[in-house]
Amino acid sequence: MKSLITAAFVTAGCLTGAAMAQTGSDWRAVDPEDLLLIEVEDGMIAIELAGWIAPNHAARMRQAARDGFFDGRDFYRVIDGFVAQAGRGEEADSIELPQYPALAGEFTVPAGSVTFTPMTDADLYAPTVGHVDGFPAAMNEAGSEVWPIHCPGTVAMARGNEPDSGDVEFYIVIGQGPRHLDRIMSVFGRVIDGMEHVQALHRGDPAVNSGVIADPAERDTILSVRVAADLPEAVRPAYEIMRTDSQAFHDAKAARRNRTHPFFFETPPAVIEACHMPAAVRRAG
Amino acid sequence: MKSLITAAFVTAGCLTGAAMAQTGSDWRAVDPEDLLLIEVEDGMIAIELAGWIAPNHAARMRQAARDGFFDGRDFYRVIDGFVAQAGRGEEADSIELPQYPALAGEFTVPAGSVTFTPMTDADLYAPTVGHVDGFPAAMNEAGSEVWPIHCPGTVAMARGNEPDSGDVEFYIVIGQGPRHLDRIMSVFGRVIDGMEHVQALHRGDPAVNSGVIADPAERDTILSVRVAADLPEAVRPAYEIMRTDSQAFHDAKAARRNRTHPFFFETPPAVIEACHMPAAVRRAG
Repeated sequence: MKSLITAAFVTAGCLTGAAMAQTGSDWRAVDPEDLLLIEVEDGMIAIELAGWIAPNHAARMRQAARDGFFDGRDFYRVIDGFVAQAGRGEEADSIELPQYPALAGEFTVPAGSVTFTPMTDADLYAPTVGHVDGFPAAMNEAGSEVWPIHCPGTVAMARGNEPDSGDVEFYIVIGQGPRHLDRIMSVFGRVIDGMEHVQALHRGDPAVNSGVIADPAERDTILSVRVAADLPEAVRPAYEIMRTDSQAFHDAKAARRNRTHPFFFETPPAVIEACHMPAAVRRAG
Repeated sequence: MKSLITAAFVTAGCLTGAAMAQTGSDWRAVDPEDLLLIEVEDGMIAIELAGWIAPNHAARMRQAARDGFFDGRDFYRVIDGFVAQAGRGEEADSIELPQYPALAGEFTVPAGSVTFTPMTDADLYAPTVGHVDGFPAAMNEAGSEVWPIHCPGTVAMARGNEPDSGDVEFYIVIGQGPRHLDRIMSVFGRVIDGMEHVQALHRGDPAVNSGVIADPAERDTILSVRVAADLPEAVRPAYEIMRTDSQAFHDAKAARRNRTHPFFFETPPAVIEACHMPAAVRRAG
């Protein structure tokens, strides 16, 4: 029975793609300047910043991290199945914190400015879905615009009702990809390691004050946020991402689309939902 | 800024539907005989059993719970973004545990045997999606068969390669709905409370032994699994589920499909992805 149980999800469960074919050119290193490390009591959350879509938001996060802005703040609004939010927080008015001007939204980019690798799969929210440099993304019908999409692990700036009102409040998606937020939020990164620590964050009640955890003692504290480039190389974690324009990634998509493991006694529909194809990540140090 | 931040997700974040209109007839009570309570150190996980699709699997879970089978077992295979699995476990051969015969798969039911409320939304995996009595579900093109679908919180029996090989190993979906498992797994319930405790379970490495956590000390122990009906009424939790064939649920879908909150400065596509419309749950005791 043991082997049967283990076999049951070998194919189905390969969400991180850790077992995918590994050749040097199919992977790229994450730039330490684009690697944001959030330390919570439960462990380290590693985020790759997405300069291709949100250079100003990425720069803001680096700046705020270097200012020590986030250290001691907390994940004060955590809604199971939706998002974990941190930043200035509910006590903003009573604590002396650096101020940052509101940022202009960074929602879409001209398709010509990036390498968008389309998937052949249908999608409910966009004419075409695919990837840009490891990030799940979509393209408009004219093929002129590209934007990142909201999947588990997507990191974006919160804002008010105005498009250009985000400053330093951010959220991490912890549930079924809320695709209705695509194109109207400034997505600036994705979690590439430690997602289980995000999932372990203490939750608020979504029916009370939009999920804000009333008692600060019940919130998970952010011990620190650091840019990996600022850490000594000896202690700096390093990651590689499977190139989403590589043959290896192409093959991984084909394998997921056409499952041949005997576990599938009936063949599932030959489609990959866009959030089900995250680019594989591996530690490189 | 505080109010802006709070407002940001009032509409977007209402995943549990806790704020939906509440009238008596729009809700039904969960039968205590269908309410399975899993106690882990982090808290209580409440599962509603789905007798409409898997009466034999539901009966098996009640039986095993009443045998005390699960008490002291653990979530030994937990893959972030995919599933948390428990049951007999990896040490099955070395521990004296009750044996249960393999169950015939319960994958689909004749449409005529259930009340299926269709959504008008497209879907990538099935011709029609909707709900049966609070459970997300799908229907075939002929309108003759209905089955539950895999969304966050879906609970199903694991199995070997053979369709009829499940016995008492179960999994809970903790990531983006793995819809490729629809129709080939015996779904027997869904988590209606305590999903945050499932999400807090210690993870395994999906690249090593299919995510099995090698060190038993690192696994979260199941303190107990009980059928609510067996608890004294005074300490028994009680829940109500919004009827998915009610006007209130119809209205909730319409509101989600057509978002009018000023936060949406551009209107999202008028579609609801099936796993984004869980039936609302409320405590009734």
